Amino acid sequence: MELFQKHQETLKRAVATIGSREYWSSYPESPRAYGEDAPTNGEAAFQDRLGKPFEIDQPSSGFSAGGEFSPYGIELGVTYPTADVESLISAATTAMEQWGKASIEDRVSVCLEILDRLKENSFEMAHAVMQTTGQAFLMAFQAGGPHALDRGLEAVAYAYAEMTRLPGGQMQWEKPQGKRDPLLIEKQWRIRPRGIAVTVGVSTFPTWNGYPGIFASLATGNPVIIKPHPGTILPLALFAETARTVLAEAGFDPNTVMLAVDTPDAPIAKELVMDPAVGIVDYTGGSSFGDWLEENVTHALVFTEKAGVNSVVIDSVPDLKGVFRNLSVSLTMYSGQMCTTPQNVYVPASGITVGEEQVSFDEVASGLAAAIDGLLADNQRAGDILGSIKGGEIAGRIADAAGSGYVLLESREIAHPNFADAEVRSPVIVKVDAEDTDAYMREMFGPVIYVIATSGTEESLRLAKDSAIAHGALTWLIYTTDSDTMESAIDSAVDAGVSVAFNLAGGLYVNQSTAFSDFHVTGANPAGNASLTDPAFVAGRFRVVGIRISA
Amino acid sequence: MELFQKHQETLKRAVATIGSREYWSSYPESPRAYGEDAPTNGEAAFQDRLGKPFEIDQPSSGFSAGGEFSPYGIELGVTYPTADVESLISAATTAMEQWGKASIEDRVSVCLEILDRLKENSFEMAHAVMQTTGQAFLMAFQAGGPHALDRGLEAVAYAYAEMTRLPGGQMQWEKPQGKRDPLLIEKQWRIRPRGIAVTVGVSTFPTWNGYPGIFASLATGNPVIIKPHPGTILPLALFAETARTVLAEAGFDPNTVMLAVDTPDAPIAKELVMDPAVGIVDYTGGSSFGDWLEENVTHALVFTEKAGVNSVVIDSVPDLKGVFRNLSVSLTMYSGQMCTTPQNVYVPASGITVGEEQVSFDEVASGLAAAIDGLLADNQRAGDILGSIKGGEIAGRIADAAGSGYVLLESREIAHPNFADAEVRSPVIVKVDAEDTDAYMREMFGPVIYVIATSGTEESLRLAKDSAIAHGALTWLIYTTDSDTMESAIDSAVDAGVSVAFNLAGGLYVNQSTAFSDFHVTGANPAGNASLTDPAFVAGRFRVVGIRISA
Repeated sequence: MELFQKHQETLKRAVATIGSREYWSSYPESPRAYGEDAPTNGEAAFQDRLGKPFEIDQPSSGFSAGGEFSPYGIELGVTYPTADVESLISAATTAMEQWGKASIEDRVSVCLEILDRLKENSFEMAHAVMQTTGQAFLMAFQAGGPHALDRGLEAVAYAYAEMTRLPGGQMQWEKPQGKRDPLLIEKQWRIRPRGIAVTVGVSTFPTWNGYPGIFASLATGNPVIIKPHPGTILPLALFAETARTVLAEAGFDPNTVMLAVDTPDAPIAKELVMDPAVGIVDYTGGSSFGDWLEENVTHALVFTEKAGVNSVVIDSVPDLKGVFRNLSVSLTMYSGQMCTTPQNVYVPASGITVGEEQVSFDEVASGLAAAIDGLLADNQRAGDILGSIKGGEIAGRIADAAGSGYVLLESREIAHPNFADAEVRSPVIVKVDAEDTDAYMREMFGPVIYVIATSGTEESLRLAKDSAIAHGALTWLIYTTDSDTMESAIDSAVDAGVSVAFNLAGGLYVNQSTAFSDFHVTGANPAGNASLTDPAFVAGRFRVVGIRISA
Repeated sequence: MELFQKHQETLKRAVATIGSREYWSSYPESPRAYGEDAPTNGEAAFQDRLGKPFEIDQPSSGFSAGGEFSPYGIELGVTYPTADVESLISAATTAMEQWGKASIEDRVSVCLEILDRLKENSFEMAHAVMQTTGQAFLMAFQAGGPHALDRGLEAVAYAYAEMTRLPGGQMQWEKPQGKRDPLLIEKQWRIRPRGIAVTVGVSTFPTWNGYPGIFASLATGNPVIIKPHPGTILPLALFAETARTVLAEAGFDPNTVMLAVDTPDAPIAKELVMDPAVGIVDYTGGSSFGDWLEENVTHALVFTEKAGVNSVVIDSVPDLKGVFRNLSVSLTMYSGQMCTTPQNVYVPASGITVGEEQVSFDEVASGLAAAIDGLLADNQRAGDILGSIKGGEIAGRIADAAGSGYVLLESREIAHPNFADAEVRSPVIVKVDAEDTDAYMREMFGPVIYVIATSGTEESLRLAKDSAIAHGALTWLIYTTDSDTMESAIDSAVDAGVSVAFNLAGGLYVNQSTAFSDFHVTGANPAGNASLTDPAFVAGRFRVVGIRISA
């Protein structure tokens, strides 16, 4: 209850903000806000994790699991507890007994305390995210730390709002019966968890994509077993450590949060999610396993964020300079390894209107290529923007893309100024025609950009829509000065189930979605069946049992 | 907009009541409230439907479908339009174009107008429900009419509340950037339907169980294809007719609501729900097809209400008279053909405390049997309570039950005073021991009651819980004067995911759940995966597309 008082104002503000959709954050995104010593201490804490077992007191048969690699080429060498599925399920079932019966206030305040503790360790988390995902430091700090915490708090706010929609305590229900005495009965409602929750983590944004499901499940009474991506374990292990500490301090079973680490050679996700005690699965990652989950895990709620092909449509602009500046950052940050990065840029073959002038397709395409080339000319800046490559098959994909059209800009290997073994690659930009759908209408994860010549904006929108419906999409970015075209693009986006942004030319990038305001994924096309975070993402994680007592 | 003004107050009250959970109804449950001519006109309207095609202007290749039978033995002879799945899906897809883009207010007010029109025809609906389901007239009137409308309105209220949680219109989003200018962007959100909704109807309560899903889907922009149970078509055909009329009057495509009538010999439900354009399936009926839907329809949201084994636990009472009076009605109304009817009555073999006295098991069991026998002694009253048997396999089930233990009361065939061919059966009451789980721990739909001798209330609760977890359950009714036993029963009910009532001895029956206050099914045991109506039942039926526009 003391903990609830401590966090009450934050919770109240968070609940209000999911309604107003205004900008708000409880966790500063500027590294400078964390004090002078924080950077050094955080880095030291991270260094201290390396080359040894990650000590965590949960069901385990040893510390042999783990085989992460750093895209920056440093040696991680952390090992994690191994545990068989049966022991994990059994420990989670025991933990649920107590956690599931805890009050809404107790659960929610434990969640908020976990978020606060994670905030304190934002620099350690930043290094862990950077070194496992290949993100540049600032992105790793923000997306791995405060922005992920925002998403976690948002999920807690939704959970709290959903769970408190019924009258608390008890009520007297009275039904008039004409001349007879009214029917009278006392009613209460109890909230119960749905069942053990499993989070299957992603290699690129383990905390940002993981926290919403984890916190939504925890707040609603479900214990969470986290199965990190075998290539990106440390960030979610840090989360689990903090969560378990806070749970224990508050008098709860720390096994309410557990790690289930596996290796690519001996994956355990399928066995884990198929256990009948599992009631919820949250997944972020490739479409193939996401589809498998949706089709096979019919005994549990399954929330997926999979892959998609995101589009840019250029129709008409007042000025190209800001467009190129914005697009060149969007298209290159983290080497296109964000699920929100645009891949396909549709431009009419006849060119576009820029202010009063007509600018040819080739000028637009080569202008974009030049902007990207310029942005990445300096190796330090290139490293800060591109980060390093996480996925192993990128080189082949770049070669494949280059062979599928006219290369506007070749991909370069760039020497990272700080990490000699980092794999830094500038994107390949390929020009194709609208009819070359085999080339561009597929997900080419990583630094691959297509510029597609269409018969006009109508075809551009049609292709973007077909592509979203067939292959999924999370984001569209449309440039147009024409209000009819904007209306028609909105209609297409609604039909395709894709979030759409218009005319971004400043410091806001289409890749970014902000907690409390932007929904991440719509759930309405093959890019995923869930939306982070909307009421549907939370409402089914608990169930209500009605109690009627006759006087 | 005029229609919205007409219904605004009703909607407002409905939205408030789903929060307060108080008693409220917009549709009078007393037949007397509908005016002097309503009974005669309603019956005449029903009679006028018989022996001819049910004219409805929807995609169809003729009027050959239909093969309903009346449990009261009257000749129905109504035929319905037949249509192939492809034509229905195609027409629904077309209808969704317009309906899915209509404003929230337009859709919600069309739904409320449909409910009002249905109210006006409550007597015709009552006869249709009575003659297809076998319910007695008053139940058919109330559960088929006003109570079903309450459930429909409740679903509309939830849908409206969910859809209006985001800022309407547009908002300016502003993110401070320290000393730099803030990021500014205009945001809007558009609600879009999930996809075509299919309602697979039940034979016993077609409107009460059908309206929640139908109205939740309609209000959120999804067209609805209704596939009635082949034995109970007319009530949902009447709904479809009214809905199509109101849709057309409001300028919408009437194919937003269509009928898909089939026969037991040529069922079309599987083909229909497996169509990839289907986004939502609502089902009420037997567990076997419900389980099939949950396991196979992975491309759509599936909401099921299946079967269960409901329990009564008698521990201690102040007085047995009211208990027997209440239980004898609960156990017999509509011959146990309600999914909420108790089947198993657990009583300690050592007897129970009644006030200050100890009453033996045999006295409790025989007292209950005598109360039921007395209640059904008069044929007119028996007909009014039992209605007629809808399912065809009841006689075999009664014989099976009678052979599985000691018969406390034999099932009798009763002559219905008004319908010579009605199949009216009093229930068989069988005494078994707790260990005879094969006999009683299975669903015995219809007029079958087990009285089970246990080692005590602790075992009674354990068996009720085991049974609910294994076979599902919708209701528990517990009689106890001991507060510790009550707490322990509540814990068991929460674990088992079953709504629980205590000490009902007056005019409220455990079978009844009231819209706006009681949730029907919890979704937390095999009796169904959904709860009528909670936010989770509604929130996923639409998706939100975010729009960001840079100035």
